[in-house]
Amino acid sequence: MEHVVDRLLQEIKRKESCIVAGIDPHLDRLPPQFLRGISGPQDFAAIGRAIEEFSLKIIDAVAPYVVAIKPQVAFFEQAGWEGMRAFGRVLAHAKAAGLLTIADVKRGDIGSTAQGYVSAYFGGPFDADAVTINPYLGTDAVKPFLDAARRTGKAVFVLVKTSNPSSVDLQDLQVDGRETVSDRMAEFVRRWGEETVGAGGYSLVGAVVGATHPEQAQRLRQKMPHAMVLVPGYGAQGGRAVDVLPSFDPKGLGAIVSSSREILFAWEKSPLGADGFAQAAAEAARRTRDEIQQALQSRVA
Amino acid sequence: MEHVVDRLLQEIKRKESCIVAGIDPHLDRLPPQFLRGISGPQDFAAIGRAIEEFSLKIIDAVAPYVVAIKPQVAFFEQAGWEGMRAFGRVLAHAKAAGLLTIADVKRGDIGSTAQGYVSAYFGGPFDADAVTINPYLGTDAVKPFLDAARRTGKAVFVLVKTSNPSSVDLQDLQVDGRETVSDRMAEFVRRWGEETVGAGGYSLVGAVVGATHPEQAQRLRQKMPHAMVLVPGYGAQGGRAVDVLPSFDPKGLGAIVSSSREILFAWEKSPLGADGFAQAAAEAARRTRDEIQQALQSRVA
Repeated sequence: MEHVVDRLLQEIKRKESCIVAGIDPHLDRLPPQFLRGISGPQDFAAIGRAIEEFSLKIIDAVAPYVVAIKPQVAFFEQAGWEGMRAFGRVLAHAKAAGLLTIADVKRGDIGSTAQGYVSAYFGGPFDADAVTINPYLGTDAVKPFLDAARRTGKAVFVLVKTSNPSSVDLQDLQVDGRETVSDRMAEFVRRWGEETVGAGGYSLVGAVVGATHPEQAQRLRQKMPHAMVLVPGYGAQGGRAVDVLPSFDPKGLGAIVSSSREILFAWEKSPLGADGFAQAAAEAARRTRDEIQQALQSRVA
Repeated sequence: MEHVVDRLLQEIKRKESCIVAGIDPHLDRLPPQFLRGISGPQDFAAIGRAIEEFSLKIIDAVAPYVVAIKPQVAFFEQAGWEGMRAFGRVLAHAKAAGLLTIADVKRGDIGSTAQGYVSAYFGGPFDADAVTINPYLGTDAVKPFLDAARRTGKAVFVLVKTSNPSSVDLQDLQVDGRETVSDRMAEFVRRWGEETVGAGGYSLVGAVVGATHPEQAQRLRQKMPHAMVLVPGYGAQGGRAVDVLPSFDPKGLGAIVSSSREILFAWEKSPLGADGFAQAAAEAARRTRDEIQQALQSRVA
């Protein structure tokens, strides 16, 4: 059985990259050549095709520079079942290209329902190497994923501290006067992951910790020594290279950094233009990879 | 513009029912006649058809006794895009039958992504009258839904206190020593709903409060005087009629009670058997309606 996080660590070393390309195909930002066949906002068949074709070309372009792709299901779901068909094909295409896949679905529900999500994402129609999950419902909502992780070697990334400004509303609430809700969630993540630590020292239970909160990232890193941290919010959401460093361990491992819009829509600011969208994305992915690698090396040095 | 919660209140009075039929088509509990065409666990085309046909017949059977249906998307998602196609058709069928629809999706994501979910569920391919949402990400993840509610009259039900045993893990954490996370979420719900209170006194921002925690339900009811409360967990999850009462206002309004497995799979315990699955569901829905109505009347009396 493959331990997905061990494989992720190998890929990070092999590609000298900890970058995840977020696949968020905002329809109104696709290069115009993808939009020509769409007759209107309810033409989901054509919209599904457009976001699929765009996503597949992006995956091919960025594959040398990233270790994983992270399609955000909302952008597919809004195109109905045709969009969900595209979602499945995007995951399958990335897998065939040798990339790890993280289905960014942020699901969370009671046990019997969570089992349905497990069936969808772990070996099912939307098979992925990992999913993001929402911990609001507590342990029994997470358990079906943990059981499946032990059985399949696949991984989860639990929302601990998200990148958006309003993450303070709930996640920063002070619990018992000593720590925050996200600190407490980090403790759960540590416990949930104890039994699935792989050869590389990281477990199948990872955590989402936004790049926009470096001050908290350091503390959360320490509370979850075996959790691979998925850092969203790099680039478009305001995270910078220096902000992601606290999520890495002293060896420069233990975190992956997701960039979505900066890579996907690099063509908008590039002299390559719409026709060069794929090359622009590839260059943006390489640049992002190099920024993080340099920041990690300066820290170690 | 129709105010969905005002319409819900009218339907509650007209049908003398506050019951929501949860549509959770567990494949292994469908009557055998629906399973015959399925060649294996990956035959999603046939599985999608089976859960659709079953769900449509259930909706027709229970329509006189319930005010809304609440399909749980996980059971459709696990059948891939064919399942999601069924999900859209189930919502459309219920709407055509004059029922209100609550898409039980528990989505929650940062603003730009939440907007994608809004597009999917409010007027989009999976058009519903209301959705359930997860508040872990805070206000800016909810705002696209609130803006859309004001624009369309559609509603959201925010997870406040869920029905599962592990809801204690996060939702019962003590904040500032005086109240719990779910108390705090109730305060957010009150605030988020202030501007969309309808003629019936209830706003477009409702709350999910499980039937399994009557002691908290009373307090949450008071903290959110204008929030319609969606009470899951009735029946199969252990909630009884007396347990749901604290979520109602003194007039016996302000809450809707969801029952899923007890209605859907009533045929398993019924002398009507598999062929009488629809009639068994109708009887279970009527019985559930009557139980709650009687409990409400005894309380008022």
